Parts: sequence; C-alpha cells; structure tokens
Amino acid sequence: MKVIKSATELSRALIQPIAFVPTMGALHVGHQSLIKRAREVSENVIVSVYVNPLQFENQEDLNSYPSSPEIDEELAAAAGATILWRPNQSELYPNGITKISAGGVGAIYEGNRAGHFDGVLTVVHALFSNIKPTWAIFGEKDLQQLFLIRKMASEFFPAIKVLSGETFRESSGLALSSRNSRLSAENKNYATIVFRSLQAAQSQPAIAEMKREMLATLRSEPSFTLDYAEIIDDTTFDLAVEESRNKRAIIAGWINGIRLIDNMAMQNIRSASKVAAI
Amino acid sequence: MKVIKSATELSRALIQPIAFVPTMGALHVGHQSLIKRAREVSENVIVSVYVNPLQFENQEDLNSYPSSPEIDEELAAAAGATILWRPNQSELYPNGITKISAGGVGAIYEGNRAGHFDGVLTVVHALFSNIKPTWAIFGEKDLQQLFLIRKMASEFFPAIKVLSGETFRESSGLALSSRNSRLSAENKNYATIVFRSLQAAQSQPAIAEMKREMLATLRSEPSFTLDYAEIIDDTTFDLAVEESRNKRAIIAGWINGIRLIDNMAMQNIRSASKVAAI
Repeated sequence: MKVIKSATELSRALIQPIAFVPTMGALHVGHQSLIKRAREVSENVIVSVYVNPLQFENQEDLNSYPSSPEIDEELAAAAGATILWRPNQSELYPNGITKISAGGVGAIYEGNRAGHFDGVLTVVHALFSNIKPTWAIFGEKDLQQLFLIRKMASEFFPAIKVLSGETFRESSGLALSSRNSRLSAENKNYATIVFRSLQAAQSQPAIAEMKREMLATLRSEPSFTLDYAEIIDDTTFDLAVEESRNKRAIIAGWINGIRLIDNMAMQNIRSASKVAAI
Repeated sequence: MKVIKSATELSRALIQPIAFVPTMGALHVGHQSLIKRAREVSENVIVSVYVNPLQFENQEDLNSYPSSPEIDEELAAAAGATILWRPNQSELYPNGITKISAGGVGAIYEGNRAGHFDGVLTVVHALFSNIKPTWAIFGEKDLQQLFLIRKMASEFFPAIKVLSGETFRESSGLALSSRNSRLSAENKNYATIVFRSLQAAQSQPAIAEMKREMLATLRSEPSFTLDYAEIIDDTTFDLAVEESRNKRAIIAGWINGIRLIDNMAMQNIRSASKVAAI
C-alpha cells in the first residue's frame, strides 16, 4: 500500500503506466519480442495495429502490405499484450492531418521514399497522443525510424521513455520482417546476403575496410540490387568517422523487387580495446 | 487481451477503475469491511484519511476527534487498500471553498448540527473530483449521510456507483464507531440500549408500536439522553407510513456526552409477508 500526501502525487499514482508497441500488423516473433519487452516494464501493454497510409510512397506498396488480423490477435495475446487497438484514420486525426516534418535525417536513406518519415512521425505522434504511454517500444531493425522517433518523442513527449528491441533473425541470419512473407524460399536464401555483408563489415578494423567488404559481399549476390550501404554514427546518423563510438553498418536494397533493410553495430578493434581497458 | 476499435473505447479502457473509501481516520473493523467491499469490486482501492473541519459544528468536537495514523495504515493495508491518501485542505480546495448545500434532508436529524451535511457533501465532492472513482463505498451506519451522498453523486457524478457497507457491531450489538474509543467500559454497556431499542422496534407489526417500544426501551436506560428516534422511509427520509416498503428505525442521543447514532431496517409483518408472497 502506498501512503500519499499530496494531490499531485495522487494524480501521478492514478495514471496507469502503459507500455506501447505500435505495429502495422502482420505480426511475427520480432513483434512478439517487443511485446515481451513491453511486458517486462508494465502490466499494461497496448499493441496498435494500423497500416499507416501516410508512410507509403505509392498506393501499390500500401495495398500489397501483408495483413493477418486473426494471427495478429493470437500472437499479441500470447506475447502478453493486454489491449490490441485497431485505430481508424478519422479517430487518429479528428481535426485534420498536420504533418510533422522529420527534417534532414528524415530525407536520407529510407527517407528517399518521399514523405515516408513525415508520415511515420505524424502517425506515431497521433498514437502517442491517444495512449500517453510511459514507455514505447520500437525495433532496432528500423534504425533510422527509431532515431527519428526518439528525437520527436524527446521534444513533444518528454515523459515517454522510448525503448528499443533487438532485431530477431532466422537461423540463416535473415532479419525478421513482415515483408519477408512476400519472399519465395529461393529469394529468402538470396536475401541472407544482407546479413553476411554486415558480418563481413563487422570483422574489419576500420571504416574503409568495413565498407569495402560489405559492398564486395553484397555484389557477390547477383539477385540483390543495392540501394545504399554505409557506416554511420547511430547517435547522429552522420557518416561515421574512426572516432565515432557508435558505428553501425546500414544496408538497404531489393531482392527481385522486395525491399530489405538491416543494420548491425560495428564493434571494431578500436572500440573493442577501449571496452577491455575500462 | 481486449481488442478495441474506437478511440473512445480505448480511452475508457485506459481509465483505472478505482474503488474509493473516504474516512476520517481512527479506522476500525467497520472501515475494514468497507475496504474489503471495495476490494471485491476493484484491485485499486484508495482510502482517504481526512478529518474534515467543515462538518464539525464546534472546534472542541473537532479537536477531540480520535486519531491513530499508524494503526490506520496497518488496518487499511491489511484490508486490501492499495493507496492511502492524506489530503490537505489547500489541495482539496485550491481555489476556495464553495459549499454544496445538502437541502431539506440535510437540515433534519443529524442536520441539526449546523452546516454538518453541507460540510460532508463539500468534502466528498472535492475528494470525488480528485479521485474520479468508479465506485465509492460508505457505511450504512451513517444512513442520512449515505442518502445525501447518493443524491449528490447522482447529480454531480452520475458515473460513480455509490455502494453501502453493513454496520459492524460488537457482540453486545453496539455499532462500531470511531467515537466509541471515548466510551468507558461502563458507558459501552449503557450504550447497548440503542441496539436493544432498535431490536424492540423491529419485532413490532406497525409504526406506532415500533416507535412506542423503541422509546420505552430507550427511556429504561437513565444514562441515555435522547436526541431523536423515528421510523423513516429510507428512500426519502420522510417519516414512514405503513405502506412504506423501506422502513428504518433511526436513533441518536448521548451517553454521558458521547454522541451515538444507529439505525436498523424494519422487516415488519406487512413487508415480510410480501416478500414471502413473491
């Protein structure tokens, strides 16, 4: 039993601390790991399922986005969600849609899809406004999205703690993604080139070698079409320099028209020896 | 897991349903039974402890009101309270005290104490406004207070369900009350006259006999000073007529200056036979 003396403290105690996992449905074990992470911090876990039209560049991609409402309910419940919310657009934006601009970092890499991150931030803002969670959990696989949401949340919702969940991978190394359901068995096999290229980069001592090995490995798979492959500083999303403490390799491209993105932290010799010295 | 489609439904689901037990402290097993009743309907049970100056007619009665903060915490926690709130006056009334008028029923019986029920309703309104409970639980011992709070709540807080808890009695029949701590063992013995008078009324077939037996029994105890003893209809607080379905005997008076109040539902022959006929 809590003993409370002030009305302010009381109203704080009456707020139900919520952990929130926004999704576009087509749930898989990666989403389940985010839901379990949410459940670790709160007994109230809300999962939203909303395919956000604002973040799709073209109607075709939106229409073909995978959907599995019954499976979503089963997987969310099994992972410990207490509420599954399917918002509709008119309720999310009752008074019109004022877009939130994702700024400079919103225009590079995944931001080449026009308006993509403005759409992401706008819907996340609307979801946060409705739910007012204490925690919100996003996957590290969408690293740039995570970066931009952290920035938006710190400015608009400073009380929300944004947590990240590690990328889940098949035993082949392929990062789990709802879009993987559109890959044939053969294409899935080709798609492992992304993971293998990230690993190739990780074993290198410096940025130039990381990038060279990553690109060489990617080029070895003729089915893969490169969009970008870079080593960035994940605290700024600028290109990494040797001094950057948080280097990440980021890769995006296509296997037979199906988009793949992935990333991996680079523990290079410099930072590894620093860790050992502490 | 709940599946929710509308934002309205979502915001309803996010409200933590609270059961609220307002007290003036000096908790006893009667309060504990109210807290247990609260716990039956909700996992969130707030007990407030606030000796409300507005409902005391004179400073002396207020100053001598019993207080036992440590025991209160133990008893509240043991009965299942999740929050114990000790509000302070400036937080309850941040912008001044606009009194709520208890009206006609607020001026009779216990309302003879000038401003008593206005004070009760004003503080309960302030507590309800802070807590916004789904349920609020009050003891039947303070029957007129229960009646007036039900009326106020139905008008100002229609969403709050007001529940009542039965009066707890010692084996002698004496109703539990925080004020009993001021009764000597001898006075406690005299005080049982109230319960015995209610029982005497209950065994009578009609209102005139109920009242006669009740008064005769009360007069048999020379230490007891009568304030009032009536048979009322507890749905209106008017004097009961034979046709009233909800007759209650209400008694108030003093044993050596210590105030006692009590009440009992009258199951007279008429209503008992009605029940049997259904």
